[in-house]
Amino acid sequence: MIVRDFNELKNTNRAVSNEQWTSVRMLLADDNMGFSFHITTLKAGSDHTFHYKHHFESVYCISGNGQITELDNGTTHEIKPGVMYALNEHDHHRLVAGDEDLVMACCFNPPVTGKEVHREDGSYAPADELEQA
Amino acid sequence: MIVRDFNELKNTNRAVSNEQWTSVRMLLADDNMGFSFHITTLKAGSDHTFHYKHHFESVYCISGNGQITELDNGTTHEIKPGVMYALNEHDHHRLVAGDEDLVMACCFNPPVTGKEVHREDGSYAPADELEQA
Repeated sequence: MIVRDFNELKNTNRAVSNEQWTSVRMLLADDNMGFSFHITTLKAGSDHTFHYKHHFESVYCISGNGQITELDNGTTHEIKPGVMYALNEHDHHRLVAGDEDLVMACCFNPPVTGKEVHREDGSYAPADELEQA
Repeated sequence: MIVRDFNELKNTNRAVSNEQWTSVRMLLADDNMGFSFHITTLKAGSDHTFHYKHHFESVYCISGNGQITELDNGTTHEIKPGVMYALNEHDHHRLVAGDEDLVMACCFNPPVTGKEVHREDGSYAPADELEQA
């Protein structure tokens, strides 16, 4: 059994961040669960465009508020505690945090290795490209 | 993109419950994400023994308090907001909710179909046994 505490990991190298967001990697590929699990905090007012071309991701809002827009058709959905979105079609999307930080529980399949960086197109590379790099 | 709201689903047949717990199925196998995602509430004071012999599960505590015990070796861990446990060895375990309801974000691989029931040994049947049933 693996037991980990977000409040401890957030001060370690399992927390990846930039000015707009922090992602704490609770489970990564090397945990061999078949998915990765992250607690991601997006700062109030921050604005993100992502396009996970090689991953499925589900995102559940624990706290905060914001909006997600499907960039292929312009549809916007309100994000509030209890709302989940799932990118089952590798959806190109824009996520904007409202006047509170968004705290989100995120699952990725295939699991994130922890070595990915967001590329210019908002995607993560597939794991086999990372291995070749 | 799939968008679902826990606060709507909890009043539908996506919520499965007994006297001790309620599990709201945010994502199931037929969503084709490769995992399922559930928000599970375990009533204060309730006591559960589970053994997912055919699934990996991670469980993240959103709110509440309790304890998990590894039944193979007796080790007990405190559960509080921010703590996650992952059953990476199909661990036989006992979960006891404390003086508040435990609200947990749960990921299963392989994804739960929604047709499983807990068997006497605390497991869910593998999906291929369900298909044969």
